Amino acid sequence: MSKYQKPTLTTRRLQPENLETPISFLETNTMPPELFYKRNHFSYPSLTYSNYWLPINGSVVTPKVFSLEEIAKLPAKTLKVILECAGNKRSYFEPKTYGEQWEKGGISQGYWTGVPLKTFLESTGITQTAKEVLVEGYDKGKRTDMKNEYPYARSLPLDKALHPDTLIAYEYNYHPIPFEHGYPLRLIVPSWYGMASVKWIKQISVISSEFKGPYQSVDYVYYPNKENEDNAFPVTKMNVNSTIQTPLNMEELNTGSHIIKGIAWTGVGSILKVEVSLDAGQTWIETDLQSPSDNYSWTEWSYEWSTYEAGEYTIMSKATDSFGRTQPTEAFWNQKGYGYHAIDQIKVKVE
Amino acid sequence: MSKYQKPTLTTRRLQPENLETPISFLETNTMPPELFYKRNHFSYPSLTYSNYWLPINGSVVTPKVFSLEEIAKLPAKTLKVILECAGNKRSYFEPKTYGEQWEKGGISQGYWTGVPLKTFLESTGITQTAKEVLVEGYDKGKRTDMKNEYPYARSLPLDKALHPDTLIAYEYNYHPIPFEHGYPLRLIVPSWYGMASVKWIKQISVISSEFKGPYQSVDYVYYPNKENEDNAFPVTKMNVNSTIQTPLNMEELNTGSHIIKGIAWTGVGSILKVEVSLDAGQTWIETDLQSPSDNYSWTEWSYEWSTYEAGEYTIMSKATDSFGRTQPTEAFWNQKGYGYHAIDQIKVKVE
Repeated sequence: MSKYQKPTLTTRRLQPENLETPISFLETNTMPPELFYKRNHFSYPSLTYSNYWLPINGSVVTPKVFSLEEIAKLPAKTLKVILECAGNKRSYFEPKTYGEQWEKGGISQGYWTGVPLKTFLESTGITQTAKEVLVEGYDKGKRTDMKNEYPYARSLPLDKALHPDTLIAYEYNYHPIPFEHGYPLRLIVPSWYGMASVKWIKQISVISSEFKGPYQSVDYVYYPNKENEDNAFPVTKMNVNSTIQTPLNMEELNTGSHIIKGIAWTGVGSILKVEVSLDAGQTWIETDLQSPSDNYSWTEWSYEWSTYEAGEYTIMSKATDSFGRTQPTEAFWNQKGYGYHAIDQIKVKVE
Repeated sequence: MSKYQKPTLTTRRLQPENLETPISFLETNTMPPELFYKRNHFSYPSLTYSNYWLPINGSVVTPKVFSLEEIAKLPAKTLKVILECAGNKRSYFEPKTYGEQWEKGGISQGYWTGVPLKTFLESTGITQTAKEVLVEGYDKGKRTDMKNEYPYARSLPLDKALHPDTLIAYEYNYHPIPFEHGYPLRLIVPSWYGMASVKWIKQISVISSEFKGPYQSVDYVYYPNKENEDNAFPVTKMNVNSTIQTPLNMEELNTGSHIIKGIAWTGVGSILKVEVSLDAGQTWIETDLQSPSDNYSWTEWSYEWSTYEAGEYTIMSKATDSFGRTQPTEAFWNQKGYGYHAIDQIKVKVE
């Protein structure tokens, strides 16, 4: 008789479609497609699957065009990879920054299967002058700050493009990638924020210059100063980060035992430790890491908290990775609100 | 090919189920059941429909028990009624208050059909000492602040109980009330915050004293002081209020023409005017009211804004009702975070 709904994506914006994963209410470690956050810059593109081809051109020795059938025959690998929107947690910046007001659910993970980009570039060869690999999606449209129409396109430096785990993926969780997530082919760039993982790949061009498209040199750039663009630098690797899933912020709890749990992740190395504080950061307690930490997916952590003293508590979580990077107390504010990774915190009342 | 999702409810809490209406993304004036917010204090109750009866007892002349078939034969009326959670917009209070962190979507409206409670009380009669009418739901459970189990139960003063528009409803939008919203019978108390509209009615008792259950005298009480319970008073009628639906907060817009639109409502009388400010409250412009204002449902309002000057804008909305009540600049803070109705505001950037 009781008809509990499954949690669903939270609508942040309808057109273009931007929907957030209900991160506090996940029951699985990998996201079923219907709970994978959606971040679109434009309307969904129109593709003709029947004659879909992947062209690889530019500063290559032999330009080639691959069919999906040919790609399916190439040696593939499957990686469990986080995609995190660069704007994840943007709504927590103070002062607030423009753009989708993501809370903590601009992040998802699952198994991506595909062929390393490297395999394609070995097949075409690259010229001596090759500097970056430009990946263009079928999605395109206008921006509020410019006149022309632009495709969604991003470049990778050669070393990242040739990394054996940078994939041209065609499956998510062992099924064809859902259309909204980039079918038929999506670039997957592990460890980098999600903007690098271009959906609906239209073509791949090896270029001999620095790509300056708006999604490379205007957006997805950290501008640390409020009044000017000094000291700007590009958004690339994910910061070390953690999120408290339960309890919920401003929840009222009984005295007794409660599980404090969440996830932690990093763009370099793996998560070594996650600490929680029950006294607003004065003292820290190491939590149990519940799943093996690897380089591209998140670690679940938990702490069993027995509390018999009524009162208000500020609970914090802080992750540290294998390169000694840890979460800062204060967020690194930047004009466009990228890469929020301050220590997570919630407040609860025990009564 | 493009598969836009319909907006869905936002999960605020899974158990008990509390889900918020995606208020910025509504396409209809009345809520289809799947977009009606859900506010539960407990798990869903177990009911046996096959032998469901409605007992009316206590300080009545002739206690009676009504079957659903008997109720269906009584003269019914249909009213378009808002239900607004008393905690709607709670997340905007500063300092924050405990409980579900509702944003602007703890509100929905639609057509409720049922028999006036008055009809039942005329049928049973009431005694000279009758003071309140207590309505108990089938939902029950424990609270974090007390030891015992309590049912969800609320009383109405006699005059409100006998108001011809206080209904024992059995249909929502001309279909049986969905189970999660109170099937088979739900009290509908127009103009009052939603806590009065008890779901899954178990029994109705006329009482000769003041009801002191926890959902009457602990919760749903305004405690205006942070440190004590002085000057407390009960939550009853909805405050005059308005919500900006579009643009979204922190949205980036082109120069040109944009529709600023939203809803406005009140618990007394009707909405007479809604004003917007484009300069953070220095000047106000009257908007167009798009639907006729009546006493129990909201008014849609809109304003076409032509802007050719790039910059940041703070947009506000302020409703005034037919009793001259208007929204305050500062929220009326209270311990439990009820009745938020400060002037609504968003920020946008035009470029």
